[in-house]
Order: sequence, then C-alpha cells, then structure tokens
Amino acid sequence: MPKIWADTIELHRRDMQVAILDATAALIGEQGLGATTMLAIAERAGIGRATLYKYFRELDEVLVALHERDVASHLAALEAARDRQGTPWQRLERVLETYARLAHAEHGSELVARMRHSESVARGFQRLHQLLQALLEDAIEPRLVREDVAPPELAAFCIAALSDAHTLPSQAALRRRVQLTLAALRASG
Amino acid sequence: MPKIWADTIELHRRDMQVAILDATAALIGEQGLGATTMLAIAERAGIGRATLYKYFRELDEVLVALHERDVASHLAALEAARDRQGTPWQRLERVLETYARLAHAEHGSELVARMRHSESVARGFQRLHQLLQALLEDAIEPRLVREDVAPPELAAFCIAALSDAHTLPSQAALRRRVQLTLAALRASG
Repeated sequence: MPKIWADTIELHRRDMQVAILDATAALIGEQGLGATTMLAIAERAGIGRATLYKYFRELDEVLVALHERDVASHLAALEAARDRQGTPWQRLERVLETYARLAHAEHGSELVARMRHSESVARGFQRLHQLLQALLEDAIEPRLVREDVAPPELAAFCIAALSDAHTLPSQAALRRRVQLTLAALRASG
Repeated sequence: MPKIWADTIELHRRDMQVAILDATAALIGEQGLGATTMLAIAERAGIGRATLYKYFRELDEVLVALHERDVASHLAALEAARDRQGTPWQRLERVLETYARLAHAEHGSELVARMRHSESVARGFQRLHQLLQALLEDAIEPRLVREDVAPPELAAFCIAALSDAHTLPSQAALRRRVQLTLAALRASG
C-alpha cells in the first residue's frame, strides 16, 4: 500500500476514535454512565454498531480509552503550568493550583469514580509525583523550599494534601488549600 | 425477672460478643478475610453455630461490628492523646501523630479496605474532624495556629495531609509528615 494511503487510513482511524470518545463523553455528561451503552455511543457518533465494534470490543474499552485521554490532557495542563515562566516557587504554585482545579472539576464524575483504581490513574499519579519532585528539587537550591525533608516525600505530601480537592466548596477554598500546602514546604530560614 | 439476673444476662451477652469479635479478628489476622466464615468464627470462639447466629445473622454483621469496635477504639486513643497535658499545639501534635500511627498500622488490612465506604468510617472521620477543629480553635487564641483560614478548613487539611499515612515507609517518615502538616498550620507571626 502506498505510504500516502496508509497515512490517510491512520488519520481516518484517529478521527474516528476521537469522534467515538467525544460522543461517549457527551453521553456520560448528559445521561450518566448507566445510559452509556455501545448502541447509544454508535448512534451519537453517527456510525454503525459494527463499525464501533471494529474500534472497541466492549464498553469497558471505550471507557478506559476515554479516561486515559482525560488523564493525558490533565498531565499536559500540568506540564504547561510547569513550563510557564517564573521562579521555581511560582511554577510550583501554578502546578498545585492547576492540579487542585482539575481535581475539583472532576467532582461527582461517574467515570472518574469508576476508574479510581485503574492503571491509568496510578500512572497519572506517578507522573504528577515526578513532575512535582523535579520542581521541588529546583526550588531547594535557591532556598525556597525546606531541605530537611527529601523532595519525593514533599511531592507525596502535596498530592495527599490536595487529595480531597474535589470536595472543597469553592475556588477560594481551593486557593486557600494550595496556600496551606505551600506553607508547609517553605524554607523556614 | 429480678434485676440481678437481667444484669447477669446482659453481662454474658457482652462477654459473648467480645469473644466472637476477638475470634473474628484473630481469624482475619491469621488466615485472611476469605477464610473467615461463620463456621470458622464459631469454632474459633468455642461456641455452636446456632449460638453465633443468635448474636449475628450473617458474616457481614460480624465484620461491621468488629470494624465499629476498631473505629471506636481509635477514637478513644485520639481523645486520650487530646486530653493529655500540654499546650494546644502539643496536644494537636500528639493527636496528629496518633492518627498517623493508627492509619499506618492499618496498612494492608483487608477489613479496613472492605469497610472503606462504610457508615462507621464516615462517622469516624466526622468525629476526628470535630476533635481537630476544637483543638485548632484552642490554638488560635494564643496565636499558635494561623487565623487566616477557618478551623474547619484547617481540620480538613490535616485529615487530607495524612490520608496516605498507611503508605508511608517508616515511623520516621510518619513523623516528618506530621511535622510538614503542622508547619502549614503555624501562625506566621
């Protein structure tokens, strides 16, 4: 098969997957996880059931793929927050605020609840931990962050301290929580 | 029925319940939750199955009662830590250390994992939150604890910051985590 054909087919595959996951997300948002069946997804995406089954063998595969896409987009947002200009402290603050906001926005998400113990969540937390650890290491040298506790432990503390962000009642409460978390990290000198 | 008889019967009932729950805890510890059946509990407690069923209608009732007893004993330990002498700050420190140690000791407990979403856990956290909130209120007046965040929010922060205590690798790591949590609460002045 000529390469341009293969590329076109691959592009079509990706477009189709995007359309299927978008349709699934919309269905879950509007009608809940209970109403999200393979048939409903196919109808919403405007494709036949047989076509849908060529891409995903069962509902669970669609849900896992959708959730992995969400995790990847959250990690991209966290990396963007990390990469904006500023001191290591400012970048740390931005990453924690972004994480708290993302976690808060997930409140009540049936998909997130269902995927809580999934591989993709575990991998997502691992990546978040690495990202925070690297930022904390950058912030120790200029004596912004305390050096009596190792960065991996500080990173785990940050994640724990924001672990109930989805239950906080307001954006103001989220910001206060991030400031509390940061206060624990600050070098005392 | 004369009162002394009624008292004796009530005492016997309680002794029997204690014996059943002790037997259940021992079984879970030695052979795991999977091997803990009504028959095994009766044998271990040295009673007949019919007698066991007079006290608990099914295995789940035994497990709930055992777990509630554990939660009650944890709350008693936290209250004892609170009531020992010291400044509000020292008492707060002791309560957080006690909570972290109790949570850590539960690591890998099948019963705790199974009861995670139970009513008794929810009530336990509510009591812990009240206890911390009262201690934090006591510590604000002498300017030990920051006053820019309300005590209920500070209490929720403490619980979140120690929420992964069961995963921490050592007693030293637990103590560092408690110190990090306290550092966030400290009045800045």
